[in-house]
Amino acid sequence: MAASIKISPISRSSFDHHHSPIPTHPRFSTVRCSASHLSPQALTTLSAETLDPAPVLRSVKTFAPATVANLGPGFDFLGCAVDGPGDSITLSVDPDVAPGTLSISSISGAPKLSRNPLWNCAGIAAIATMRMLGVRSVGLSLSLEKGLPLGSGLGSSAASAAAAAVAVNALFGSTLTPNDLVLAGLESEKKVSGYHADNVGPAILGGFVLIRSYDPFEILQLDFPADRDLVFVLVSPEFEAPTKKMREALPAEVGMKDHIRNSSQAAALVAAVLQGNARVLGSALSSDGIVEPRRAPLIPGMAAVKMAAMEAGAFGCTISGAGPTVVAVIDEEEKGREIGDQMVEAFLVAGGLKAKATVAKLDRVGARVISSSNE
Amino acid sequence: MAASIKISPISRSSFDHHHSPIPTHPRFSTVRCSASHLSPQALTTLSAETLDPAPVLRSVKTFAPATVANLGPGFDFLGCAVDGPGDSITLSVDPDVAPGTLSISSISGAPKLSRNPLWNCAGIAAIATMRMLGVRSVGLSLSLEKGLPLGSGLGSSAASAAAAAVAVNALFGSTLTPNDLVLAGLESEKKVSGYHADNVGPAILGGFVLIRSYDPFEILQLDFPADRDLVFVLVSPEFEAPTKKMREALPAEVGMKDHIRNSSQAAALVAAVLQGNARVLGSALSSDGIVEPRRAPLIPGMAAVKMAAMEAGAFGCTISGAGPTVVAVIDEEEKGREIGDQMVEAFLVAGGLKAKATVAKLDRVGARVISSSNE
Repeated sequence: MAASIKISPISRSSFDHHHSPIPTHPRFSTVRCSASHLSPQALTTLSAETLDPAPVLRSVKTFAPATVANLGPGFDFLGCAVDGPGDSITLSVDPDVAPGTLSISSISGAPKLSRNPLWNCAGIAAIATMRMLGVRSVGLSLSLEKGLPLGSGLGSSAASAAAAAVAVNALFGSTLTPNDLVLAGLESEKKVSGYHADNVGPAILGGFVLIRSYDPFEILQLDFPADRDLVFVLVSPEFEAPTKKMREALPAEVGMKDHIRNSSQAAALVAAVLQGNARVLGSALSSDGIVEPRRAPLIPGMAAVKMAAMEAGAFGCTISGAGPTVVAVIDEEEKGREIGDQMVEAFLVAGGLKAKATVAKLDRVGARVISSSNE
Repeated sequence: MAASIKISPISRSSFDHHHSPIPTHPRFSTVRCSASHLSPQALTTLSAETLDPAPVLRSVKTFAPATVANLGPGFDFLGCAVDGPGDSITLSVDPDVAPGTLSISSISGAPKLSRNPLWNCAGIAAIATMRMLGVRSVGLSLSLEKGLPLGSGLGSSAASAAAAAVAVNALFGSTLTPNDLVLAGLESEKKVSGYHADNVGPAILGGFVLIRSYDPFEILQLDFPADRDLVFVLVSPEFEAPTKKMREALPAEVGMKDHIRNSSQAAALVAAVLQGNARVLGSALSSDGIVEPRRAPLIPGMAAVKMAAMEAGAFGCTISGAGPTVVAVIDEEEKGREIGDQMVEAFLVAGGLKAKATVAKLDRVGARVISSSNE
């Protein structure tokens, strides 16, 4: 058996698709960029006076997938994108909107969300991207279709931010690098759910993404081999995860032994991704001894749900993001459905919660343009 | 650029070279085996009454390389083998030695070492391997040539153990798996330098080895792509590392933030190995924020040596094992020699220590038979 890992050089030009109406993502291995929380280098260097690009499209529609972050021992630095439902954005040049600004014209699928761009994930990311590009002469109108439920642990806010950043970039000729787009999305995440990029990274880039450091901002894209199957069983209970308690459950300190054990499992998880070993991937993902044991009790039935998943043949199971969705890993969709049924049953019996199972493959593409128009 | 990772299935039979006088190592990706400190499953299951193999060779000579363990953020679970000097063992069937026992006939290169097999790394590993095989009717005589200095942080004890385990196995037809051999070597390590396999793992398997867990014992072999170069600069000062202080310098607890940071760097290190990215590998190896900062002050001049390495262009630098050897990483031998010169100079100026630099490539093979005889 041989598995290939594709490695592309660091390149900004590989993302320069000025003449392509529907840009696709280049794959890249390492991206470096200095960033501070308030003024990422990208913002500074790209907002030079000389910029103010003209749109190459009148309107663009984008899509960004759900993501699973806090992958077991990869807490806070490892996430992946999953196919299926996601968020969509339609972004248009709008002469009725003041030049250099953004208006949110409509939101569907989430009545609670604010239409004030400064209080909306998509709005914040879109504005950050406009700033990076130095857009000053054109006003934009954004329409958001939420396909992901809020607060479910599936990267809902990151999907909106990712779709928005990619939309703005595409409208102006896709001159920004994927790394710039992740930084733009991060501007949104930091206001909504904390300064972490393990949702917005994979939402934009697809596949598995490792956030190596924030200062300098550096991420690694980890390609799961194209010829292998990886299936996620996502089981979301009707339950609002207690965000504050979830955060408080994190220990301030961890024992050296636990640190070494979790680190080696995180390292094994990365090896399994790159080697395409779903079984090792699952068991490594399942082996967090630091965060999961403390957070699991806050999700009613979680222990039983995990046990049910493993007994039904899952390679591994853990909390998705900060919950309440629980994610299991397997290598076949049919098996995934069986595992999902058992997990849903366990949520009902042990946790008294109704739940819904979704079986999804790895999304290897990330946020993308799905249609565009010049009229 | 594309890099291939070779993945072989878990297989014991792939190591069954009954009729080959000079066995080579199979590559494998994951090995599982239950092991307890006193009675590894391998020992139990293989020492059945029915065993007592006949030797297929009269004499065999083996070699095992130096290893670099505690690879920065991979403390205690990530190591690699480096070419150049190592330990050699000549093992012979000896009718003057009581059946089922082992005698150490000579040791060169390390006058202090005990010739009592129970107090000698090579002896302990050889006996553990004989027990695994169930050798009862044949007595063996072992001669050890130490090529590695003791206590230098280059896996000297592991090299002796690895060469011994591979020698015994080869003499009886190489029926044990690489995993069994690592467990035999671990029997030696636990008596000499603690229950850790990040030296003996790579000493036996070559390349990079990740120790994922001890119970069950599980290791992952990480292949650095064959078409990429990786060069280690090993600088050993004339200084005895204070083992006890080195151990006491380890913190009992680490902050959650440090834990996450180090874990993500360990994960990046593994990604860099598999993706063949020497630059990321070096910088990840260089980024340990937990152990290195506490141990470095115990090696005179270490901070200056690291700085000199980085200024001379090294991709990264850290302590090798528990020191005092310092290891830097680069991708060219010529550059490696320049870096080594600067590090030696820094040891003298900042630490008042004479030091010797060795430039070595990754050893991708591990412990091996170098000659054998049936006469």
